[in-house]
Amino acid sequence: MRITVYLTDNRPEPWVESLRAELPDADITAWTPGAPMADHAVVWAPPQSFLDEQRQLRGMFNIGAGVDALFKLRLPPQTRIVRLDDAGMSVQMAEYVCHALIRHFREFDVYEADAREGRWSYRRPRLRSDFPVGVMGLGVLGERVGKAIAQFEFPVMGWSRTPKRIDGIQCFAGDEGFDDFLAASRMLVCLLPLTVETRGILRREHLLKLNGGKPGGYIVNVARGAHLVDGDLIPLLDADQLAGATLDVFTDEPLAPEHPFWRHPKITVTPHASARTLREESVAQIAAKIRALEAGASFDTLPGVVDAGRGY
Amino acid sequence: MRITVYLTDNRPEPWVESLRAELPDADITAWTPGAPMADHAVVWAPPQSFLDEQRQLRGMFNIGAGVDALFKLRLPPQTRIVRLDDAGMSVQMAEYVCHALIRHFREFDVYEADAREGRWSYRRPRLRSDFPVGVMGLGVLGERVGKAIAQFEFPVMGWSRTPKRIDGIQCFAGDEGFDDFLAASRMLVCLLPLTVETRGILRREHLLKLNGGKPGGYIVNVARGAHLVDGDLIPLLDADQLAGATLDVFTDEPLAPEHPFWRHPKITVTPHASARTLREESVAQIAAKIRALEAGASFDTLPGVVDAGRGY
Ligand SMILES: NC(=O)c1ccc[n+]([C@@H]2O[C@H](COP(=O)([O-])OP(=O)(O)OC[C@H]3O[C@@H](n4cnc5c(N)ncnc54)[C@H](OP(=O)(O)O)[C@@H]3O)[C@@H](O)[C@H]2O)c1
Ligand SMILES: NC(=O)c1ccc[n+]([C@@H]2O[C@H](COP(=O)([O-])OP(=O)(O)OC[C@H]3O[C@@H](n4cnc5c(N)ncnc54)[C@H](OP(=O)(O)O)[C@@H]3O)[C@@H](O)[C@H]2O)c1
Repeated sequence: MRITVYLTDNRPEPWVESLRAELPDADITAWTPGAPMADHAVVWAPPQSFLDEQRQLRGMFNIGAGVDALFKLRLPPQTRIVRLDDAGMSVQMAEYVCHALIRHFREFDVYEADAREGRWSYRRPRLRSDFPVGVMGLGVLGERVGKAIAQFEFPVMGWSRTPKRIDGIQCFAGDEGFDDFLAASRMLVCLLPLTVETRGILRREHLLKLNGGKPGGYIVNVARGAHLVDGDLIPLLDADQLAGATLDVFTDEPLAPEHPFWRHPKITVTPHASARTLREESVAQIAAKIRALEAGASFDTLPGVVDAGRGY
Repeated sequence: MRITVYLTDNRPEPWVESLRAELPDADITAWTPGAPMADHAVVWAPPQSFLDEQRQLRGMFNIGAGVDALFKLRLPPQTRIVRLDDAGMSVQMAEYVCHALIRHFREFDVYEADAREGRWSYRRPRLRSDFPVGVMGLGVLGERVGKAIAQFEFPVMGWSRTPKRIDGIQCFAGDEGFDDFLAASRMLVCLLPLTVETRGILRREHLLKLNGGKPGGYIVNVARGAHLVDGDLIPLLDADQLAGATLDVFTDEPLAPEHPFWRHPKITVTPHASARTLREESVAQIAAKIRALEAGASFDTLPGVVDAGRGY
């Protein structure tokens, strides 16, 4: 079995080595143009030329959870796309989102500003019942994040395409449930995949519905930059309709140094660091799936196989 | 039944009113010198003169979890002291501590400094197995905090006076277990009561044992200021033996504006805000205990009755 590895912006060598350790019988190499046809590929943001050459791939294993970048390409029709399924990302995401929400709810930024002045300030405790959290997307990451937030006794709403029942999360689904979900949420966490349906979903029209239409909404976008309509955010913050935003993902990455998000007083920016791909966990997961396929399992039995029709 | 209320630094009126609503048959007033003898008192930091007058109190209900301030006074010998038992504080403490630990582990302060410069930085993910957390005190607050941290998959150590078994926490106990506990912990959270045994426990000699003696320890003190030997902290930070500290409590509160803790780059200061007493929850809890006592229950059956011998 031949496996080719292509990673943008990153050295493929450590991945090739780790995969070889896990799959000693396979022929594993970093892709170069003109390389022989492989059975499987392990990729991050491959170029179109990669796919145009590797027309016989059975499986393409994406070393991230989001596959939107792959669907911008012309894919070989029979190739199945497999995303990372947690692989150590959900705990990082739970950490990141809880940190952002607690920081906002508990006003730790305000205490920090007071501390810089040596001021022992008093702030009235706020009620967590006034800060319901809405999680958009209840997949591998969204469900874990929702449960982590619920542990801190915030009311938690969740929204997905198909109806769900999750302990501790009040679930809404589909277009029918969307307005009620937004109205019931004050802090909004985006953990949707980027698809034709979800692109631009964090836009003025929807953000105005948060918190029953009252001011005070807070946005955490940890999914994809294109979920947010960039130009809609700052006006809503400056008008005090929204209280703040924590953004980890951006339409264009890296975010340009002059972009106004960096220094806006109500925006916290991190450099796509909320849930990083961990090589060891990811290689172990991908190798286990390849071993299962080689042993005769069908793609349809594997977790994380992408439905090309839905786009995630 | 007569109940007197004394609160330092705070208006007692809202407490008197809330208690009256919960205990309509009791005679509840704010204490003034010379007031008639009461059966029970609800207090925060009462003066010695209060105790010298109210010699017949059966129960003294402290509206905080820590009773160290009361044990500095000469108490009427038969008066039983009852502390708040959670009453909405443990979730706040879990929030505060998780926020501080995640912020340190995930280097969000560093990202924030980079963001101020518009810099899209890359930092290598750190392993949570390299950041075990030690929780000193496994009482009402410590156990909840330890479990909240465990949810983020950090190794969690716990230390108490008497041996315990708690799911997800590796428990150490007593003087015998102390050095092993410290060596196994890198981030240290203090949730001990302040007693003769625990005063000054966060001192150079002990802090040097963190993380197997290697640099990189991190301190979160949310118990009482006097647990920390103030003069020992900054030298250990400046020598890079300790990586940082988050401090919510101080030997003298409010912390003086010129105190070096405020502006030290490795210290985060908050103004005793980690777990605030919530009036509604506290009054409901105290009223339920008083009702039980009036219905004939003995103090020994109530949660949160302080053992004067142990001092907590
Ligand atoms: N910032 C980062 O570092 C980072 C890291 C990893 C992932 N991510 C992003 O996080 C996204 C989510 O990851 P995941 O692993 O949780 O994905 P997932 O398991 O595929 O879950 C996606 C969830 O979104 C819901 N959804 C999809 N389309 C929807 C629509 N039109 N309306 C309502 N709900 C819809 C799905 O509903 P159903 O359950 O009904 O199908 C599902 O609950 C990824 O796609 C990626 O973009 C970001
Ligand atoms: N910063 C704030 O806003 C704030 C708010 C509330 C409380 N606090 C502080 O937090 C403290 C803890 O509160 P809590 O409700 O969790 O108290 P708790 O229920 O009484 O628990 C105390 C814990 O400390 C352990 N302990 C006591 N003395 C010890 C010793 N010498 N060696 C080892 N372990 C010892 C106890 O061990 P055993 O279980 O074996 O008895 C117990 O596990 C309070 O006393 C207060 O000072 C601070």
